[in-house]
Amino acid sequence: MDAWWRAANYLAVGQIYLLDNPLLREPLRREHTKPRLLGHWGTAPGLNFVWAHLNRIIRERDTDTIFVAGPGHGGPAVVASAYLDGTYSETYGDIDKSTDGIRKLFRQFSFPGGIPSHAAPETPGSIHEGGELGYALSHAYGAAFDNPNLLVATVVGDGEAETGPLATSWHSNKFIDPERDGVVLPILHLNGYKIANPTVLSRIPEQELCELMRGYGHTPYVVSGGFDSEDPRDVHERMAATLDDIIDHIAQIKAAAAAGTLEGRPAWPMLILRTPKGWTGPQVVDGHPVENNWRSHQVPLASVRDTEEHVQQLHDWMASYRPEELFDASGAPREIATALAPEGDRRMSANPVTNGGLLRSPLRLPDFRDYAVDVPNPGETTSSATGALGEWLRDVVRDNPDNFRIFGADVTASNRLSAVFDVTDKQWDAGFLPIDSDNHLARAGRVMEMLSEHQCQGWLEGYLLTGRHGMFNSYEAFIHIVDSMFNQHAKWLEGSTTIPWRRPMSSLNYLLSSHVWRQDHNGASHQDPGFLDLVMNKKPDVVRAYLPCDANTLIATYDHCLRSVDKINVVIAGKHPENNWLDMPDAIEHCTRGIGLFDWAGTEVVGQEPDVVLACAGDVPTLETLAAAQILRERIPELRVRVVNVIDLMRLHSESEHPHGLSDAEYDALFTTDKPVIFAHHGYPWLIHRLTYKRAGHANLHVRGYKDEGTTTTPFDMVMMNDLDRYHLVIDVLERVPGLMSRHAAFWQEMQDTRLHAQQYTREHGEDMPEVADWKWISV
Amino acid sequence: MDAWWRAANYLAVGQIYLLDNPLLREPLRREHTKPRLLGHWGTAPGLNFVWAHLNRIIRERDTDTIFVAGPGHGGPAVVASAYLDGTYSETYGDIDKSTDGIRKLFRQFSFPGGIPSHAAPETPGSIHEGGELGYALSHAYGAAFDNPNLLVATVVGDGEAETGPLATSWHSNKFIDPERDGVVLPILHLNGYKIANPTVLSRIPEQELCELMRGYGHTPYVVSGGFDSEDPRDVHERMAATLDDIIDHIAQIKAAAAAGTLEGRPAWPMLILRTPKGWTGPQVVDGHPVENNWRSHQVPLASVRDTEEHVQQLHDWMASYRPEELFDASGAPREIATALAPEGDRRMSANPVTNGGLLRSPLRLPDFRDYAVDVPNPGETTSSATGALGEWLRDVVRDNPDNFRIFGADVTASNRLSAVFDVTDKQWDAGFLPIDSDNHLARAGRVMEMLSEHQCQGWLEGYLLTGRHGMFNSYEAFIHIVDSMFNQHAKWLEGSTTIPWRRPMSSLNYLLSSHVWRQDHNGASHQDPGFLDLVMNKKPDVVRAYLPCDANTLIATYDHCLRSVDKINVVIAGKHPENNWLDMPDAIEHCTRGIGLFDWAGTEVVGQEPDVVLACAGDVPTLETLAAAQILRERIPELRVRVVNVIDLMRLHSESEHPHGLSDAEYDALFTTDKPVIFAHHGYPWLIHRLTYKRAGHANLHVRGYKDEGTTTTPFDMVMMNDLDRYHLVIDVLERVPGLMSRHAAFWQEMQDTRLHAQQYTREHGEDMPEVADWKWISV
Ligand SMILES: Cc1ncc(C[n+]2csc(CCOP(=O)(O)OP(=O)(O)O)c2C)c(N)n1
Ligand SMILES: Cc1ncc(C[n+]2csc(CCOP(=O)(O)OP(=O)(O)O)c2C)c(N)n1
Ligand SMILES: [Mg+2]
Ligand SMILES: [Mg+2]
Repeated sequence: MDAWWRAANYLAVGQIYLLDNPLLREPLRREHTKPRLLGHWGTAPGLNFVWAHLNRIIRERDTDTIFVAGPGHGGPAVVASAYLDGTYSETYGDIDKSTDGIRKLFRQFSFPGGIPSHAAPETPGSIHEGGELGYALSHAYGAAFDNPNLLVATVVGDGEAETGPLATSWHSNKFIDPERDGVVLPILHLNGYKIANPTVLSRIPEQELCELMRGYGHTPYVVSGGFDSEDPRDVHERMAATLDDIIDHIAQIKAAAAAGTLEGRPAWPMLILRTPKGWTGPQVVDGHPVENNWRSHQVPLASVRDTEEHVQQLHDWMASYRPEELFDASGAPREIATALAPEGDRRMSANPVTNGGLLRSPLRLPDFRDYAVDVPNPGETTSSATGALGEWLRDVVRDNPDNFRIFGADVTASNRLSAVFDVTDKQWDAGFLPIDSDNHLARAGRVMEMLSEHQCQGWLEGYLLTGRHGMFNSYEAFIHIVDSMFNQHAKWLEGSTTIPWRRPMSSLNYLLSSHVWRQDHNGASHQDPGFLDLVMNKKPDVVRAYLPCDANTLIATYDHCLRSVDKINVVIAGKHPENNWLDMPDAIEHCTRGIGLFDWAGTEVVGQEPDVVLACAGDVPTLETLAAAQILRERIPELRVRVVNVIDLMRLHSESEHPHGLSDAEYDALFTTDKPVIFAHHGYPWLIHRLTYKRAGHANLHVRGYKDEGTTTTPFDMVMMNDLDRYHLVIDVLERVPGLMSRHAAFWQEMQDTRLHAQQYTREHGEDMPEVADWKWISV
Repeated sequence: MDAWWRAANYLAVGQIYLLDNPLLREPLRREHTKPRLLGHWGTAPGLNFVWAHLNRIIRERDTDTIFVAGPGHGGPAVVASAYLDGTYSETYGDIDKSTDGIRKLFRQFSFPGGIPSHAAPETPGSIHEGGELGYALSHAYGAAFDNPNLLVATVVGDGEAETGPLATSWHSNKFIDPERDGVVLPILHLNGYKIANPTVLSRIPEQELCELMRGYGHTPYVVSGGFDSEDPRDVHERMAATLDDIIDHIAQIKAAAAAGTLEGRPAWPMLILRTPKGWTGPQVVDGHPVENNWRSHQVPLASVRDTEEHVQQLHDWMASYRPEELFDASGAPREIATALAPEGDRRMSANPVTNGGLLRSPLRLPDFRDYAVDVPNPGETTSSATGALGEWLRDVVRDNPDNFRIFGADVTASNRLSAVFDVTDKQWDAGFLPIDSDNHLARAGRVMEMLSEHQCQGWLEGYLLTGRHGMFNSYEAFIHIVDSMFNQHAKWLEGSTTIPWRRPMSSLNYLLSSHVWRQDHNGASHQDPGFLDLVMNKKPDVVRAYLPCDANTLIATYDHCLRSVDKINVVIAGKHPENNWLDMPDAIEHCTRGIGLFDWAGTEVVGQEPDVVLACAGDVPTLETLAAAQILRERIPELRVRVVNVIDLMRLHSESEHPHGLSDAEYDALFTTDKPVIFAHHGYPWLIHRLTYKRAGHANLHVRGYKDEGTTTTPFDMVMMNDLDRYHLVIDVLERVPGLMSRHAAFWQEMQDTRLHAQQYTREHGEDMPEVADWKWISV
């Protein structure tokens, strides 16, 4: 045990400091060290300690275990462990078990062209980056769902534990099914410090901390040691004994669950591990305490290139691990250092669960065409788009009972996906009442709802990263709560897709409903379509944004998304009954193109250029655009109007910038190079400019969209407040098509007056005027 | 007590349903009800219950109290209370105490042209919107800091309690000074349900919940009642008795703190209030249970316009509050209903703390010119920009000991603001060790650090909303964690600045450092400059973004920010020693303009147009641009290069879109209308296109910036990975200035080779090649 740990610590320190002389076979000199010392030492000994002890458990009990390193900044530790158990050399052949291999291992760390300083997609055995703290337990639980035999050992930094997402993720234990899901073992690592401060949880009385953990529903176990120069071997002993107790306790719960004798929710064990930050590192550097202090967080000896003293201290530190005992003459780790490693796939670095694509099998998807809503003619019927999707999702759930889950923050019903509750329940183990038969709650179910967008996102990520499928439905505005998690997942994909041994994983699918234009009970706080702007910042290879215009296009889009891999698909759709425009065959064609003419809606003459293009993206903009087209058709029949609808926003990108981008020729064909284009967009208007600024016709493009005007009001008042309404689109056409205004000034004024009238009507009646509320499309 | 509560409940229901017949003086008919029924009933009786009881406490003890409604969706409740205590009519004269006033009160709610459905800036007494759940306690603690006599009674929904930000905000009690700060009384409202699900905290055993609260460091008090038709008067009695105990307990702690006899951290009281959701509402509607069920969340009787049955049920429900007892013939609330209201400013709706601008006084700001770094010539000296700012901030802290705080998630030292610790400490009450003298921790201090960006943001918002000043320093990438909070605060400002009685409040100031270009210890996860893109979506009136190019411009910018009101100022600056370009007089001029020529860096000839414009925004882009200008000056001396630097990004906007926008004439003068512009930008390049797409010269604008290429590597490798490096900028010039390429093909190739060489150098040596690392600006 201790030998493994010493070896892992040695390898961690070596990665941070050494370019050469990796095994100290000659006296350490400044030039052996790296010119830029980058990395985090403080957390490494703790991570290595836990890893070593888990290895013993795995060997003794053959448990299927993976490791989640909350303090993923301890990259050197997880890499060291993967090296010791052999996975690293198997994955990266040139980092072999030799002095030269170790030299390369050291050199590449945080080195240009090498590997990042954190656990990363490059790290075998990792599903968790840990760069942005807060998501360790959510990822862990996501991995545990539907993996009944898996143990997810999860180190939570005591600093990380202060973040909001982590603080609520303890409650995940009320959402896990002891029978059909795996087990998460949280290991709260109280090393006492974060970057430059002590941590809250390390400073409150242990009694209070245990109450907190019991209040979170856990049974806390405590191991504390390594302080005041306590011999680590004593701590090993206590740790081993406690871990045995914990694993026994878990086994009891699992056995009871399997036997059906489990009463109520189990108080799952968790471990509080209190050891010094930077344990076994330098005690004092330049007169400052380092071990058991925040000063050990990054690189304790910052001047090894500059002072002999630091070089000497580094040498003594590394030598204290007795490398000569740990590595043989050729540099290969000796049996004593590696004996603890489990076999094959049981190694935490090699567990296939951590490379989910290996295990992933495609979903069984019912033929979505069977779920088409009936559309005899455009606009003749209405449907709730998400409601219609729900019918198909119901059968997706039914046909994939153990590898597909739907996540939502208490809004799955509000977003009208309730059809799924015909075949499944919301998984819940926080306590049941008789009335819950009415609430679709059960200990096992495919829908996961907790009022935390962070949890939904984190759980889903963990679930996908371990080879399964899922989707997250949210209110559009509140998806910003996980902006940063989206960013991090996108970065993971940007990285993992370039790593050959990482196999493709299921895409992360969003369904954003209750969107900016239809808020009913809520006002400005619930209105924000800006997530799209964030999404567009990520690399084109990994992000997709879809704005289906009606029910059938939503269903066709979602079928595509659930089949895709290595993407983040953002789909925005309404939940209220709205017009259906396309029957399923047309919807399929339209979605496949991602953009196209609604020739049934325009007044073009074959062979001639249109006078104006009305473009639209999103359900409400499509409605307003078609209503505007209809007004124009009635009032200025000679005007040649083209209607273009966009489902796949990425089509607007240049071919060179996004794989879905239209060629300039295609774009010009659709939008013309010189005619006015009035573009009604679901989100902030600038996004469309940003996508099209290089296009020939850009100077003629005039975009309407949300400009942050909102409150609790009627649907049509909302679009009017943002100048996206049909009357304003008509006004835009009149003002932009050369010569039109002067010929139709009275009509222009009428449109202005109609807007005023529509507004006044809402003020008087509290609802939209009938000609808007009851508007119907009349076929050309 | 009960009469107030009945009146408040009556007024809440009336707001949701009634257009007319507000006091049921005639039989209720369908046309008296609203065509669109919008709002949230379920939470209202609980909010009203708490409000009523707090009124009694305030009257009896004259406590200075404000109310934070976590479930701010219960707008009807807080509005009803403000109406009953008279504030509403004082604020909005036409909503007077008469039948007609009540009719207007009812009608305006969630009605076009009326007020939003949530607590909002329009709501007297509110500093908290509650639309996006999670921030109630953070806001409450922010209000409590430096308000030693204030009691912030804060209702936390049991649903809200599941969010991450709320789950960690309980720990705020370890960051409050019992002597110099006020008291937050958390009231966890277990009404059992959220939108469509039970809540976790209402379903775990009460024993477990109390352990959780004790683990969070609180003393839980429990009041439970109203179930199985219990007479509310019995619950009133228990609530009153318990609240008395709580207030006594708080008074004891405060007295001990004042006397200096407080030992350790007090276990502040908190209240667990368990009452039915939708208490006193309909029991059963259409066969479904409603009271004590999630079905009471929004509008329990959805068909009052359509079915007689629902109208009758609504009538019975409203009549059950016995309005005839509560309102007199003229419609004015009778004494029995309003007697509980405190006097004047003691009313929670009228407390000036909730309209912070009333109390705000400007900061005492030391003359920032005295903190200038010495810049004899451009590029001659180097400084850490944030380090230099820290010196000035130190004295800002010193001179404003009770109304200015600095917030940061464990990164204030990392961001190099440590100078402030010469005069203050980090406020902390989680437990002290002898070593903490070294840690700048104390029970009172002006720096607030917890590893939660949510807490930093929420605390700061609460602090500002109650009339004080502050700033939040963060790693640039992790500010995305609070994207959504930023959005909500911007929306609050968008609203509050249009409300005449809301007085201007201090701006929310960000300082984003450890930015994308200089990450050292961390890699891709820490690299993301996309916050700017989000910021630009909000209304121009409230957002500002500054990219100072060096230390003096940062100091000058921050002085401006700390003086401003009603804005969100985003300032991005480096922490590492970098070149100083401008002495303070120049910096002041440059910052005042926000954009300008670096005439000392260009090679223009007076009276002639330049051949190319090199523009830059941000410290690293400025460095690379100047290095490129220097190369061009040496190698193609005849090329007329203009260098333009942007500090205030909003200057690029059109005049019509942002108050800071340059006129087209000004823009054209700086950037020309037809010359190539190579723009090196700190963030994602599209932002610059988005800001400038309407400008004449836009077609010639070529932007370099971050394109999501990153890892742990050297500074220059980072800029090269994103084509922002000096050599690439030179290449861009060669490729864009007509005719230049063909004349300088060898030079072009040399630049390509130099990039390769620079890259290889890092791979070999682990640091940047000397000609880059040691580069110096040579004056023209
Ligand atoms: C959300 C977030 N905020 C800030 C940081 C910067 N940061 C990196 S490590 C660290 C301290 C972590 O402390 P802890 O979780 O206790 O881990 P340890 O290194 O002590 O094991 C911080 C604040 C971060 N990574 N993520
Ligand atoms: C962050 C966030 N996610 C989702 C919602 C949608 N939402 C509005 S109210 C609500 C339930 C709130 O329940 P609770 O806090 O218990 O308040 P109650 O109405 O029961 O008093 C939800 C999920 C929201 N407002 N904020
Ligand atoms: Mg720690
Ligand atoms: Mg509730």
